Amino acid sequence: MDKNSILKNIDSLSQKNTSAMVDNDFLLTWDKSEDEIAATLQTAEILRALRQNNISSRLFETGLAISIFRDQSTRTRFSFTSACNLLGLAIQELDEEKSQVAHGETVRETANMISFLTEVIGIRDDIYIGEGHTYMKEVARAVSQGHREGVLPQRPTLVNLQCDIDHPTQTMSDALHLTHSFGGLEHLKGKKIAMSWAYSPSYGKPLSVPQGIIGLMTRFGMDVVLAHPEGYSLMPEVMEVAQANSAKYGGSFSQVTNMADAFKDADIVYPKSWAPFSVMEERTRLLQEGDRKGLQTLEKRCLEINKNHVDWECTEKLMKTTRQGQALYMHCLPADISGVSCESGEVEASVFERYRVAQYNQAGYKPYIIAAMILLSKFENPADKLSELVHNARPRVFL
Amino acid sequence: MDKNSILKNIDSLSQKNTSAMVDNDFLLTWDKSEDEIAATLQTAEILRALRQNNISSRLFETGLAISIFRDQSTRTRFSFTSACNLLGLAIQELDEEKSQVAHGETVRETANMISFLTEVIGIRDDIYIGEGHTYMKEVARAVSQGHREGVLPQRPTLVNLQCDIDHPTQTMSDALHLTHSFGGLEHLKGKKIAMSWAYSPSYGKPLSVPQGIIGLMTRFGMDVVLAHPEGYSLMPEVMEVAQANSAKYGGSFSQVTNMADAFKDADIVYPKSWAPFSVMEERTRLLQEGDRKGLQTLEKRCLEINKNHVDWECTEKLMKTTRQGQALYMHCLPADISGVSCESGEVEASVFERYRVAQYNQAGYKPYIIAAMILLSKFENPADKLSELVHNARPRVFL
Amino acid sequence: MDKNSILKNIDSLSQKNTSAMVDNDFLLTWDKSEDEIAATLQTAEILRALRQNNISSRLFETGLAISIFRDQSTRTRFSFTSACNLLGLAIQELDEEKSQVAHGETVRETANMISFLTEVIGIRDDIYIGEGHTYMKEVARAVSQGHREGVLPQRPTLVNLQCDIDHPTQTMSDALHLTHSFGGLEHLKGKKIAMSWAYSPSYGKPLSVPQGIIGLMTRFGMDVVLAHPEGYSLMPEVMEVAQANSAKYGGSFSQVTNMADAFKDADIVYPKSWAPFSVMEERTRLLQEGDRKGLQTLEKRCLEINKNHVDWECTEKLMKTTRQGQALYMHCLPADISGVSCESGEVEASVFERYRVAQYNQAGYKPYIIAAMILLSKFENPADKLSELVHNARPRVFL
Repeated sequence: MDKNSILKNIDSLSQKNTSAMVDNDFLLTWDKSEDEIAATLQTAEILRALRQNNISSRLFETGLAISIFRDQSTRTRFSFTSACNLLGLAIQELDEEKSQVAHGETVRETANMISFLTEVIGIRDDIYIGEGHTYMKEVARAVSQGHREGVLPQRPTLVNLQCDIDHPTQTMSDALHLTHSFGGLEHLKGKKIAMSWAYSPSYGKPLSVPQGIIGLMTRFGMDVVLAHPEGYSLMPEVMEVAQANSAKYGGSFSQVTNMADAFKDADIVYPKSWAPFSVMEERTRLLQEGDRKGLQTLEKRCLEINKNHVDWECTEKLMKTTRQGQALYMHCLPADISGVSCESGEVEASVFERYRVAQYNQAGYKPYIIAAMILLSKFENPADKLSELVHNARPRVFL
Repeated sequence: MDKNSILKNIDSLSQKNTSAMVDNDFLLTWDKSEDEIAATLQTAEILRALRQNNISSRLFETGLAISIFRDQSTRTRFSFTSACNLLGLAIQELDEEKSQVAHGETVRETANMISFLTEVIGIRDDIYIGEGHTYMKEVARAVSQGHREGVLPQRPTLVNLQCDIDHPTQTMSDALHLTHSFGGLEHLKGKKIAMSWAYSPSYGKPLSVPQGIIGLMTRFGMDVVLAHPEGYSLMPEVMEVAQANSAKYGGSFSQVTNMADAFKDADIVYPKSWAPFSVMEERTRLLQEGDRKGLQTLEKRCLEINKNHVDWECTEKLMKTTRQGQALYMHCLPADISGVSCESGEVEASVFERYRVAQYNQAGYKPYIIAAMILLSKFENPADKLSELVHNARPRVFL
Repeated sequence: MDKNSILKNIDSLSQKNTSAMVDNDFLLTWDKSEDEIAATLQTAEILRALRQNNISSRLFETGLAISIFRDQSTRTRFSFTSACNLLGLAIQELDEEKSQVAHGETVRETANMISFLTEVIGIRDDIYIGEGHTYMKEVARAVSQGHREGVLPQRPTLVNLQCDIDHPTQTMSDALHLTHSFGGLEHLKGKKIAMSWAYSPSYGKPLSVPQGIIGLMTRFGMDVVLAHPEGYSLMPEVMEVAQANSAKYGGSFSQVTNMADAFKDADIVYPKSWAPFSVMEERTRLLQEGDRKGLQTLEKRCLEINKNHVDWECTEKLMKTTRQGQALYMHCLPADISGVSCESGEVEASVFERYRVAQYNQAGYKPYIIAAMILLSKFENPADKLSELVHNARPRVFL
C-alpha cells in the first residue's frame, strides 16, 4: 500500500465512529459496533502499511504495557509485545508466581498497583470455564474505579488475549485475512464458512476460537455452519449471539453433525479441535480442587472419547467437496497435522502445506490487530493521529 | 500542577545541594542530607507533574536498568519498571537462577559483567537479616571499583528496593503522601505518628518498613512513637538512628508497649506486622543451612507467638482515640485485612476501606520517587535538565 | 576516541565490503570474509566510541530482538540486551517452557510466528554436540523461507550466542581485546597464542570457546598452539578449519600435549577447561534419552578423569616461561580460580587478579561486537549510517 492509499484508508477511517472505544476494553467482538469492528480492521491495515513504508507509528515516548499469561503462549505473546513496541510501549510481564498476588491480595488492589503508569493490560486466561472473562471484567472494573477515584492518571485498556469465551485478537486477524483473501469485508456476504471440530490427540483445548468465529463471522452476512460430534457443544450464550447476529446481519447460522455436510460447497473451512464443554467444566472443578488423580482420569477419558471421532480430519477428499474444491483452509495454529506433529490429527499434511503460507500470513496480522485495538482505545481522533504520522514520516529504521 | 508551578518547584529544587548524590546510591535514607531528602521528594513531584502535563521526561535515548529481586515483589517491581521507562531506560531482570551467578562467581565479577551499559541497578534483598544491605554495599563497591578501573564507562546507581534494614522507596513515597496530606514537609513538625506492630497470621515479614519509618520520620521533627509486643524489637542500630534524629531535628522518638498508647492523639497511624527480630535471625541461619524441618518448626512457633497478640488490630475503636478521631491510616500494602484477606489481621475492614484510596495514592508515588532517585544520581544539574524538559515540552503521548 | 578519529574509522570501514552480511547471520567466524571480520571489529569500536562521546546510536525507532537461551547465561544475556538496546531494539525472550514450542510445533513455524516484527534473533544452544549449530541453521532457513514467501516483511538476523561449534561473540570480543592490547589487528601477525585446556572441578563445559579461538586466531597470521590432555580433542572439522586458515593466512597451527610447551614464549595464553569430546557426545545421548542415572554416572566418571589432570593449571611459574614472562592472560569468564571459586582450578589467584581488569575490559567489548553484527546485517551502507549518527550527534543522555 503506497502513501496515497494509506491516506485514503485514513480518510475512510475518519468517517467511522470509534468514540466509545476510548478508555474502553476489547474483550468480546460482539460488544463492539459494526463501525468499531471495521475501524479496528482498517487501523490494523494502516499500521501495517506504515511499517511497510518505514514510517514510525511510535505514538508513545514512554509508557508501560503489562501482560498477564495464565496459560502458555508463543504467538500471542510475541504479537502483543510486537504491537506494544510498534506504538512505543515497553512490556512488563506480571508473573503471578513471582508476585505477591497469591497472598490474598484482591484483584482490585493488584490491578491498581501495577497500573500507575500503565497504558495497556493484555490478559490470557483461557483455562477455566466461567473464569477468564469474569476475571477480565473484574480487572476492568478495578482500573475504571481507580481512574475515577484519581488513583490512576489514565485508565489502562484491557485487551483480551484469549479467555474462556472469546479470542478476539485471533478472530479479528482471521477476519483481516478473509478481507485480503476475498477482496474486502463487503465481499464476505453470502460466503459459507465451516467452523468444524476436528480430531486431535490432545486434550483440554479451549472453546474460545470456535466461539469467537461463530460470534464474529455471523456479523458479515456469512453463512456460518458449525459442526461437531455430540458432546462437543459450545457455550449456549455464544450460540445465541451467533443466532442473533445472523438474524440481524443477514446470512445464516446453522449446525450440522458431520464434517462432510459442513464442508459441502464451503468457501472457507476452519477445522479445529476443542474439548467437550462438560469436560472443560469438570476440569475447571478438578483444577480448582487440586485433584491431580481426577485430572489424570479425566484426561484419559477425554482422550478416549476423542478417539471415537478420529475420522473428523480435514482431508484432501473433503477439501474437494468445497466450493470448486478450493475453499480457503484456516487454522489459528499450531495445528495437529497428521503424520507431522502427531499420527492422526486435525488435518492432512498436504492440505496444511498447501495453505501454510496463507496461514502464516493470517497469523501475521495479529500484531497489527492488537496495535489497532490499543490505538483506538487511546486516541479520540485516531484518523488525525495516523494522518500526522504519515505527514511527519519519521522513519522506523534510519535506512 | 500547571507549568508555572512546575517551574517554581524547579527553581526551588535548584537551590538544594544534590551534588553528592551524583554517581552515588540510594540505600538508606539516613545516609542522605536534608537537602537530598527534600530534593528527592520535590523531583518526584516535578516528574509526576510533567507526566500529568503530557511532557516527556525521557532523558535517556538508550540505556539499561537492571533489577535483582531476591524476594517476591509486585508493586515495587512495577514501580521500578515504570520509573525506568519514564526516564527512557529499558529493564533487564537478572534472574539468578537463569544465570551463572551460583557457579562460584564473585559478586564483584557479576556486578561488572552486567553493568557495561547499565545506568541503574535496583535490588530487593530483604529475606536475610544482616545480608541485604551488606550485599548492596558489596555490589556498590564492585561497580565503583569497575568504574575507577575503567572497566565501566559509567557507574550504575544502586537503588535499594528493600533490604533487611531500610525500604527507602516505600518510606519516601510515604513521606510524599504525608506532604500531600498535611500541606507540605514543613507542616509535619510536631505531628504524632504511631508506627505500631499489628497482628497478622503470616510469618517472616521484614523489619525494613518500621525501621525505615522511624529512621525517616524522625527527621521531620515529628513525634514518632513505636509500639510492639515484647520480642518484636527492631535492629538496635536503627533505634539509635531514630533517637539521634529526634535529638537533631526536634520532635521526639519514644516507645510504648501497646497500640492504645501509640494511637492516643496520633495524627498518623501506621499499623503493620513484622517478625520478631530473634525469629528473623534464627530463620536466616536455618535458611542458610537449608534446614527445612527447622524452618517449619520455626514458622509454627512464630505463628503461635503471633497469636498471643491477635488483639493488636487497628480497629474503629482505636481510630476514634486518635487526633479528633481522624488520624491518617497508612500501610505499605498489601495489608492483612480482617475478614477480607484473613480471619483476623492488621486492620478492620471498614478502617482499611475508608483509607483505601489514600493508600493507593500513597503507593502511586513510588514510581516517581524511584525515578527521582535515579535522576538525581545521574545529573549534576537536575534543575536545569527538568527545566529544559518543560521548555522543550516534547509530548509523552502524541495526543 | 574523539570525533575525528571516529570519522577516520568510519572512512576506513567504508572501504570494506560487507554487502554479503546484509540479511545474513553471524553463526561461525570462518563463514565470514576477512573484510567482514575486520568490519565487525571496526564497527564495534565505532559504536563504543559513539557511546563514549554521548552520541546516540539508536538506528531503530521500534523493532524487536528475540533471545533464546537454552543454557544459563549472564554476561552474554546482558551483552545481547545491551547491544539491542544500544540500537533501539526491545528485547523479548522466548522462554520455551512458557511457550507452545514443545507441543510438536515445527521449528519453521515457531521461527516465523515470533518474527513478524523481529529484527534479530540471538540464540544460545551449546549443550548438545551436533545440535546447536544445526538448530540455528534450521531457524535461519525458516526465516529466509518466510521472508521469501512474503510472510515476514524483513528477515531477522541470527546471532550465534554460543553453539556447540563456535562462540563468535566471545572470540570476536577476544580479538578486539587483542587489537587493543597489541596496537591493531596487523600487529597480531607472528604472535604466539596458547589455547590450552586447564583443570576445573566442573563438568560438561562446552568446546565452543577453544574451537572458536583456533578457528578465528589462525586468520590473523598468529602462531596458534592447542594443548590438551589425551581424550580432550576438539571437533575434527574445526581442527581442519584452523589448519586451512594457518596455510592461507600465514602463521601456524600446531598441537602439543602439555601446558609447558604451549606456554613457552607465548605472547598470549588462554587456559580454559572443557569437556572431553567423547563425554559430550555420550552426554548428548543420555540427555536426549532422559537417562538421569546414566548422566550421574557419566558426571562422576568425567570428574574423575578430569582429576588426573589437576596439574593443568595456569600458574605464576608457567607464566614466567612466556615471552618475557609477560604473556597476556585471557579467559572468557567465569574462571575457576584456585582457592577462590574452587580448591584447585584453571588459574592461580595471583595470575587471575593481575589480569582481572584486562579481562573485564575483554568482556566489555561483547555488547559492541553484538551490536556491530546486527548493524552490519541490517544496513547496506553502514559507514554512511554511522557517519550520519556522528553528524546528527543526537545525545544518548541529555546531559
